[in-house]
Amino acid sequence: MEASELCYLSLRSLGTLIQRQEISPVEATEAVIDRVEKVDRQLNSFITPLRDQALAQARTAEQEIARGQYRGALHGIPVAVKDLYYTKGIRTTAGSKILSDFIPTYDATAVAKLQDAGAILIGKLNMHEFARGATNSSSLVGACRNPWDTLRVTGGSSGGSGAAVAAGLCYGALGSDTGGSIRIPAAFCGIVGLKPTYGRVSRHGAFPLSWSLDHVGPMTRTVTDAALMLQAIAGHDRHDPTSRTAVVPDYTASLTGEIEGARLGIPQEFYFEQLDAEVGESVRAAIQTLERAGARIEEVSLPLSQYAGAAGRIISLTEAAEIHEQFLKTRLADYSPDVRAGFLVGQLILGKHYMKAQRLRSLIRQEMAAALRRVDALITPTVPVPAPRIGQTTIDIGEEHIETIWALSRLTRPANLTGFPAISVPCGFTRGSLPIGLQLTGRPFAEASILQIAYAFEQATTWHQRRPLV
Amino acid sequence: MEASELCYLSLRSLGTLIQRQEISPVEATEAVIDRVEKVDRQLNSFITPLRDQALAQARTAEQEIARGQYRGALHGIPVAVKDLYYTKGIRTTAGSKILSDFIPTYDATAVAKLQDAGAILIGKLNMHEFARGATNSSSLVGACRNPWDTLRVTGGSSGGSGAAVAAGLCYGALGSDTGGSIRIPAAFCGIVGLKPTYGRVSRHGAFPLSWSLDHVGPMTRTVTDAALMLQAIAGHDRHDPTSRTAVVPDYTASLTGEIEGARLGIPQEFYFEQLDAEVGESVRAAIQTLERAGARIEEVSLPLSQYAGAAGRIISLTEAAEIHEQFLKTRLADYSPDVRAGFLVGQLILGKHYMKAQRLRSLIRQEMAAALRRVDALITPTVPVPAPRIGQTTIDIGEEHIETIWALSRLTRPANLTGFPAISVPCGFTRGSLPIGLQLTGRPFAEASILQIAYAFEQATTWHQRRPLV
Repeated sequence: MEASELCYLSLRSLGTLIQRQEISPVEATEAVIDRVEKVDRQLNSFITPLRDQALAQARTAEQEIARGQYRGALHGIPVAVKDLYYTKGIRTTAGSKILSDFIPTYDATAVAKLQDAGAILIGKLNMHEFARGATNSSSLVGACRNPWDTLRVTGGSSGGSGAAVAAGLCYGALGSDTGGSIRIPAAFCGIVGLKPTYGRVSRHGAFPLSWSLDHVGPMTRTVTDAALMLQAIAGHDRHDPTSRTAVVPDYTASLTGEIEGARLGIPQEFYFEQLDAEVGESVRAAIQTLERAGARIEEVSLPLSQYAGAAGRIISLTEAAEIHEQFLKTRLADYSPDVRAGFLVGQLILGKHYMKAQRLRSLIRQEMAAALRRVDALITPTVPVPAPRIGQTTIDIGEEHIETIWALSRLTRPANLTGFPAISVPCGFTRGSLPIGLQLTGRPFAEASILQIAYAFEQATTWHQRRPLV
Repeated sequence: MEASELCYLSLRSLGTLIQRQEISPVEATEAVIDRVEKVDRQLNSFITPLRDQALAQARTAEQEIARGQYRGALHGIPVAVKDLYYTKGIRTTAGSKILSDFIPTYDATAVAKLQDAGAILIGKLNMHEFARGATNSSSLVGACRNPWDTLRVTGGSSGGSGAAVAAGLCYGALGSDTGGSIRIPAAFCGIVGLKPTYGRVSRHGAFPLSWSLDHVGPMTRTVTDAALMLQAIAGHDRHDPTSRTAVVPDYTASLTGEIEGARLGIPQEFYFEQLDAEVGESVRAAIQTLERAGARIEEVSLPLSQYAGAAGRIISLTEAAEIHEQFLKTRLADYSPDVRAGFLVGQLILGKHYMKAQRLRSLIRQEMAAALRRVDALITPTVPVPAPRIGQTTIDIGEEHIETIWALSRLTRPANLTGFPAISVPCGFTRGSLPIGLQLTGRPFAEASILQIAYAFEQATTWHQRRPLV
């Protein structure tokens, strides 16, 4: 197998070959690390590659498997994580100059769980500084570049995760999502990104942006791979007081591709407004594809989603303000300008405005819960536009000029406020070959249900098979 | 039976007589309403008595029971509710001039549940304005007076509930508790007051002070009566998003008086500091009583409870600020000075400080949860001092002068922050004949456990049999 073929295997396929000892974890790890060294200068997706450690882990995995101690689908699989996950003895920068020398003394629970499942950690990935931005253009190591067009953003904040997975530099990655930070780069990079239900995956050891909105989740090239990674990281963790004890189902068992009778809700307000024409076309075509696959399409009403942007920003910046208060006093000059501006605004927000935002949030949650009693999932675009150019501050949609910062997270924020699970899957490309994402939002703890619908869509399409030029 | 004997029957005893048709609900209702008319000029515990409606309800109950349609322990029992509970067609003032003309169009869930259980609503009770104060000296109708000494406060904010129950003006009352507002007047008035677990009783239709700290609960003359009232009001309510679905057990079934082997934790920090000497003596004697009844006494460590006062005030005032923002703009002069001052401070609290208080709260909760893994309940005084005089702004404890507003809620606030259930039961009197309360705090949703310990204590003592002079 050619190196690039090997690097682009799905996590599931590589896992099968590793289990059969047809490919060694060492071989796979060397292939992706070589590829990182070859192509990542163009992308800037890694902050800290971990060649030596990864190869040592791969050799251990190889030996365990040779001895018959196969741990499961992630054993021997090279993965990488956003650089806000604490890694014991390995610096963890959160994309910021302020943490450029920070070396945690323990692993984040999600990282530890991946490694317990046998995954090989090949590096720490680029991200928008402190996860406070949807482009990944502000970072300790500079902007992350989109593998489909390196003059364009990856989306963020988990841009390194999006680029690395899309470019075949790892078989799966951890992102984190406070306002869309997994789903936006998944959409812009043409991969799958899953934000699980709030409380489903432990956030212990993930540098926080906003405690009530932050979520940990997987980014992969296929839906099955997302299910496999979620399987490894989901579950209760006594170190995270917001983590929940709900039973973790078998996420791949339900991936049958059969969605006859599944009810999908198309929001009548907000989600299909201010939409790039090509994004709108692709999403409408995706809805038809799902209908042909047996889904029943219904209209639902979600007018309050329009307030998710304002409420989400107020909540996020207020919660971040408490976390960043000390750094703003001692390291003000070390923040990127956009990130500094946000956190300084956060210092000034009054408690009563935070409460108003929380009250609005509770109404948004009630409205979405009501819609999801009628249908199994909501179906919307992930981002209203394809990836903008790096540095582009406004986006034209029809006659309107919209601030990039507002446009990118417009359709992803509602699921952070409600805590409901949401997944982005590739659903097409613009004529300029930029990926477009379809977002499915489900009921609390019904990740299996949106994975199933996403899988059926993936089976009916070929978008996930395209590769970027990098 | 003499009228005053009838009025002082326990809810349980009256219920038994009503069930046997030995006393009519009409007779009991007339007796307490006559008593309200006779003695409440001294106490000021009722804002709105409901003679005609109550007698009509009582006649209906009488007929139902005569027809064999007995509904259970509350059927035909005259009760009253704090005037922040919405009552359909009956004005609901929350003790404030601002709501003096407010007539709700629906009943609070807790009120509706009491009436569904057959209880007779005889009136709406005095309270500290908008529940923002621990004395009940600021109110639309003026200070509520303590039946044990009418120059002294009842405690608050549910002071009318405390006075009315203590003075035999009803058989049980609803209070509400954001920082101790059920337990403080229970302690000062010599009755039982239970703050259930956060989420156990619906708050729908209770005028809010602070959404994350407010609790609805019963105030009664005996522990059994508290269990019976809790039984009627507990359970999930889809109108209150913070209401929980945990199963409601049979709260009276477990009242056996048997506590052999129960483990009680005495906090080594904070709860026995800055304590009035007579309160300290009574509580220590109560601990010995429980030990003789078979409980095992252990020391536990709760040093973070000392921050509950600061965290509780910041959270409460910030949450109240959002609710009161409009009234402060349009009706500023109509607030009592102390209440206005608090709500104005709340307008200025920064979101980041609210977040800090919430973070502290989470640590306090973890610490209390850890202590309650070792023991079944925490045992402390309810209030560090007996009831101060109306208008008294500082309290002397030993050499120290303490602000009344800080002293009263000092030991009750931790259970609001943690959401854990807590009950106050009478445990003695000062030489000046002022009641003293013992507080038991239990695990989440373990109301049955603290009721059982409180019941065993009540069975071993006679404090609950004393009556005020009024």
